[in-house]
Amino acid sequence: MSFDSLLIIGGGLIGSSIARAAKSRAGVSTVWMADKSADVIETIERLGIADGVAEGSAHHFASKADLIIVCVPPGKIAEVAADILPVMKAGSVLSDVGSIKGAVITAMRPHLRDDVSVIPGHPIAGTEFSGPEAGFAELFDHRWCVLTPINPDDPALPKLTAFWEALGSDVAIMDPDRHDTVLATTSHVPHLIAYTLVGTAVDMETVTGDEVVKFSAGGFRDFTRIAASDPVMWRDVFLSNREATLEVVDRFIEDLTALKRAIRWSDGETLLDHFAKTRDIRRRIVESGQDEPNFGRDD
Amino acid sequence: MSFDSLLIIGGGLIGSSIARAAKSRAGVSTVWMADKSADVIETIERLGIADGVAEGSAHHFASKADLIIVCVPPGKIAEVAADILPVMKAGSVLSDVGSIKGAVITAMRPHLRDDVSVIPGHPIAGTEFSGPEAGFAELFDHRWCVLTPINPDDPALPKLTAFWEALGSDVAIMDPDRHDTVLATTSHVPHLIAYTLVGTAVDMETVTGDEVVKFSAGGFRDFTRIAASDPVMWRDVFLSNREATLEVVDRFIEDLTALKRAIRWSDGETLLDHFAKTRDIRRRIVESGQDEPNFGRDD
Repeated sequence: MSFDSLLIIGGGLIGSSIARAAKSRAGVSTVWMADKSADVIETIERLGIADGVAEGSAHHFASKADLIIVCVPPGKIAEVAADILPVMKAGSVLSDVGSIKGAVITAMRPHLRDDVSVIPGHPIAGTEFSGPEAGFAELFDHRWCVLTPINPDDPALPKLTAFWEALGSDVAIMDPDRHDTVLATTSHVPHLIAYTLVGTAVDMETVTGDEVVKFSAGGFRDFTRIAASDPVMWRDVFLSNREATLEVVDRFIEDLTALKRAIRWSDGETLLDHFAKTRDIRRRIVESGQDEPNFGRDD
Repeated sequence: MSFDSLLIIGGGLIGSSIARAAKSRAGVSTVWMADKSADVIETIERLGIADGVAEGSAHHFASKADLIIVCVPPGKIAEVAADILPVMKAGSVLSDVGSIKGAVITAMRPHLRDDVSVIPGHPIAGTEFSGPEAGFAELFDHRWCVLTPINPDDPALPKLTAFWEALGSDVAIMDPDRHDTVLATTSHVPHLIAYTLVGTAVDMETVTGDEVVKFSAGGFRDFTRIAASDPVMWRDVFLSNREATLEVVDRFIEDLTALKRAIRWSDGETLLDHFAKTRDIRRRIVESGQDEPNFGRDD
């Protein structure tokens, strides 16, 4: 029940990882890739991870593909979907890998067709590296992939689920807005905070850049790893998932302010109570296997 | 020019790692360990990493040791120093591994002796795990160790420097207050923020603990790793390095508030400018080698 042909639009880390895994793991016969960048197309050809490539318009592949996965930054997904939906063949499936779902689905809605299954998706996987050379077939192993079908009874849902499972993922089916609320907490706000703190450190007049680099092993370097992810993608995420992001950020600032007050007033008990309660969730993450990096790579 | 005998007071992650490395790497003949916990002492004996152990008072070893390193939480270092300084032999060296230096030195000052070298230290190394079984000899490899001598011309400084270099560290000599300012940025505030965010996520009514665990690979799990460090130690750090911590936290909240405003008003340019500037510091950390974990362990 695998897809015979796959078009990947966007040849970055995620797109090129799907390309690397689709044939060997998911039984796809033909993989086409499109990207608006000539450099990316050239790299994909050199890597030999696609059976055909298109720079810019992907209409000739889009009209033939059984499955199309849009792997561009969230702010561009709806635009790409609007461009290719009219040429897609009846019975084919359109998906994506964007980190936000609600706003993208809203923007896609006017372009939907009854005879094409639109099942947005989000593999919770990645590394700090970007571009086609950063991809690898094992990226999705033991990672969750969330699918947020527009129609919960979409007949193509089991087939797309099987595709992601073949790529190594566990699949979760979720409501798009629920996805955005949960991911605001587990992903979007952590990234915003990491970007902020790294910026704060760079701007501190009292500490030099050399000192920050030298003594980064104290905890800071983990923030820099998170804050090294693709800036364009994250800008789009925060702007598209505004309400949920701001809600979590506000709660975070409240909590940080309470701990600040505890420090100012030497209230060690409040600090200790707070620090102790975070250990349980860490234990559960380790037990769940979600702490194992993919083959030694950070993500 | 190695120390002949070493007493380590406190048998946790850092103390037990020093014990494991001191003989094989730094030419120490005899390693004694003391800890107030009977369980820790029992574990150390079982591990066979010390030539002699003391539960509680370490006076009989302290009076013979050439080098004593205090490896207890920051809030207890001055107390331990006050207890053992009177029995230490002339010409011996007292050091520690605390994450803050200024407040500890102030508290130790009344107990100093002219004939004992007091050279506080701070190896910038660690993992999320605590206790004697978590230690390993390679913990300090390619990590900075900061020494903050009370007397910058202390004749024992080259010898202690050589000891830490033998353990695998690069040694930096710093003023204690400068150390605390820099580490507030690279270590203390990152830990406070990680503890805060993990607590915020646990408390969000809109997201269940199961969801947080399941989708933690999006960035959150890196915060849980940082926030799994020893709570007592971190309470002591924040309370002892209050001013520098609060200053960096305030700057961080200012910056986060500015990014919040940019999100609220869809100011993508401000977000992108901010996110792009953090990449340079990441590149420098990777180039410096400070991003390589110790033998696959997190720290």
